[in-house]
Amino acid sequence: MKGTAKAHTNIALIKYWGKRNDALILPTNSSLSLTLDGFYTKTTVEFRRDLSSDLFLLNDQAVSGQAYERVSRFLDLVRKLSGEENIYAEVNSRNEVPTAAGFASSASGFAALAAASTRAIGLELSDEELSILTRQGSGSACRSIYGGFVEWQMGEREDGLDSRAVQVAPEDYWDVRVAAVELSSTMKKVSSREGMKRTVDTSPFYSGWLEAIPNDLMQLKAAIKEKDFEKLGAIAEANCLKMHATTLGANPPFTYWHDTTVRVMHAIQEMRSKGIPVFFTIDAGPNVKALYLPEHEEVVKSMLENIPGVTSVTLSRTGKGISYL
Amino acid sequence: MKGTAKAHTNIALIKYWGKRNDALILPTNSSLSLTLDGFYTKTTVEFRRDLSSDLFLLNDQAVSGQAYERVSRFLDLVRKLSGEENIYAEVNSRNEVPTAAGFASSASGFAALAAASTRAIGLELSDEELSILTRQGSGSACRSIYGGFVEWQMGEREDGLDSRAVQVAPEDYWDVRVAAVELSSTMKKVSSREGMKRTVDTSPFYSGWLEAIPNDLMQLKAAIKEKDFEKLGAIAEANCLKMHATTLGANPPFTYWHDTTVRVMHAIQEMRSKGIPVFFTIDAGPNVKALYLPEHEEVVKSMLENIPGVTSVTLSRTGKGISYL
Repeated sequence: MKGTAKAHTNIALIKYWGKRNDALILPTNSSLSLTLDGFYTKTTVEFRRDLSSDLFLLNDQAVSGQAYERVSRFLDLVRKLSGEENIYAEVNSRNEVPTAAGFASSASGFAALAAASTRAIGLELSDEELSILTRQGSGSACRSIYGGFVEWQMGEREDGLDSRAVQVAPEDYWDVRVAAVELSSTMKKVSSREGMKRTVDTSPFYSGWLEAIPNDLMQLKAAIKEKDFEKLGAIAEANCLKMHATTLGANPPFTYWHDTTVRVMHAIQEMRSKGIPVFFTIDAGPNVKALYLPEHEEVVKSMLENIPGVTSVTLSRTGKGISYL
Repeated sequence: MKGTAKAHTNIALIKYWGKRNDALILPTNSSLSLTLDGFYTKTTVEFRRDLSSDLFLLNDQAVSGQAYERVSRFLDLVRKLSGEENIYAEVNSRNEVPTAAGFASSASGFAALAAASTRAIGLELSDEELSILTRQGSGSACRSIYGGFVEWQMGEREDGLDSRAVQVAPEDYWDVRVAAVELSSTMKKVSSREGMKRTVDTSPFYSGWLEAIPNDLMQLKAAIKEKDFEKLGAIAEANCLKMHATTLGANPPFTYWHDTTVRVMHAIQEMRSKGIPVFFTIDAGPNVKALYLPEHEEVVKSMLENIPGVTSVTLSRTGKGISYL
C-alpha cells in the first residue's frame, strides 16, 4: 500500500482570490495558471497497519502542528473515499520548491500528496476526480494536476463536484517562461488565507473583482489560443493589480507589497517601455514573478538581478502535470 | 479695481476622486480636508481698461500656455458674474507652496485668485458664493476658502449651485499637524485630472469607492467632533488607500506610488506599532503626508527624515481660510 508521485507548482495568471465555502475550499471565482517545471514536490505515501496515527516527514524532518493537521485531515478524505477508515500513513515529502523562489509549496505539496495517497490506498481516480479531491487540501493545488495552462473552473454546486481544474493547453504548446524574483526585505505578512477572508468580508472592491473575472478569463484564453504574448502579459498583470487593489479596501486595510515589490514592478514596466515584452504577476506576498519569452531570457534575468533589493532570480519553463514514480 | 488675497492649500483626509461634470467641476463624491498654515498663495488682481488681454505673473514670471488659459478662463467667469465683460486683468501671484513639499498649488492658487479677482471687480460674495465660484477653477480649491476642517459637499444640482465647501471646525479647534514628505525619485506621472478620469471611466472598483464615502465621511466627522486622533488617522489612511486602489483597476492600470512611497507608508505603520500615533495620506502623486499631534512632532520628523529616499520633511499646522490684504 505504497505510492509515489511528483507534482509541480503553478503560478496563477488569473488569481484565485476568495472562498465561497471554507470547508470544501470552493472559490468565488475561476482562475487560470501556468504549471512550472522548475518547482515540484515528490511525495511517497505508505499506509501501514502498524501505525496508530499518521506520520509526516518533510525533507526528512518530522512535521507537527498545523501543517501536520492539514495533511492528516486530507488523508481522512482519502481514507473515507476508499472505505479504509482505520489505517494510517507515513508520508515522506521532498520539496524542490526552494524557499528562495518565494512560491508557496502547498500547491505542489497537496497535488503530490493526493496522487501518492490515492495510489497507495488503491483508488483509481480520473484526473478530474483527483483535482476535485486535491482542491479540498489546498485550493490552488487542484490546478497542479495538469501541466501547461490550466483553468480552475469554480463550479456552481454546493457539494463542489463541479469545482475542478481542466487543461487549457498542454506544457509543450507554448514556451512561456517565468522568472521568480525573491526580495530581501522581511516583514510580517498577512497569510493568504486570512487576507483572502478579510478582503471577501470587508472590501468594497470585492464585487468589482468578481465582476472583472469573466472578461479577464475570456481574454486570457483568447491570448493563449492566439499565442499573443503581449495580450497574455497585459491581462495577467492587470488581473494581479486588481487582486492587490482589493486588499487596500479591506478593514483594516493591508498590502502584500514591500517597497522593493513596487521597485521591481516599475523596473519591469520600464523595461517594457524599451521594447522588451516582460510582464509581472504577484501572489499573496511581496515577491514578483516575471513572465517573458525564451528569446528575452538573458536580458530579463540580467535586468532583474540588477535591481537593488533582489536576492535571487530563479527561471522556470512550463511544467507537466502529476506523474507517478 | 484692485484686490489682494491670500489662501492656504489643503490636504484631503477624504479624497476628491472623480467628476460628474467636467466643465463645472462637479464631483462624484463629497470630500473633507484640513487647511494648512504652512503653504499659501498670495495674489493681487488689477482690472485695467488699458489691457487687451489678461496678464498672469507667477513669482514674477509671465506665464503662458495651459496654466495661463486656466486663469484667463476663470477670469471670464468673474467678468460674467460682474457684468464687466470687456475688461482685462493683471494677475500677480506668489506661491509659498514650495515645490519641495509636493503639494499642488492649484488649491491655494485658485482660492486666492477667486478672492482677489472678485474683490477687484467689485463683487461682494459670501464665502459660500466664493466657494462655488472657486470650485469652477479647481475642484479642491473650493475647500481653501475656509480654515480648519472643511467639507466639500458634492451637491446634487446640475448647475452646481449646491456643490461647495462648508467649515466643519475652525483652525483653532484642534491642533492636528501635517508633515509633507518629499521623495527623491522622479518618474513620469499620470496627472490627477487624467488619472481621475481614467479611473471613473474604466475601474471596476469605482462603484466600491463611491459606496464607501458616506461612512468614511460620517466616521471622520465623528472623529473631529470627539477629537479622537486615532480614529481620524485610521479613517484618513484607509480612505487614501481606497482611492489608490481604484487606479489599480483602471484600464490601463496605473499607480501613483513609487518604491519610496511604500517604504514611507510601512515606516509610518511600523512607528504606529511602537505606540506613536502617526498616519499617512497620499494624493495623486508619490509624496506622502503624515498626520500627527504636536507632542509627537520631534520624533515623527526625525523618523521621517531618516527614511532613505526622503529628501525633505516640511511641517505645517492647521491654517486659516481666505484673507484679504
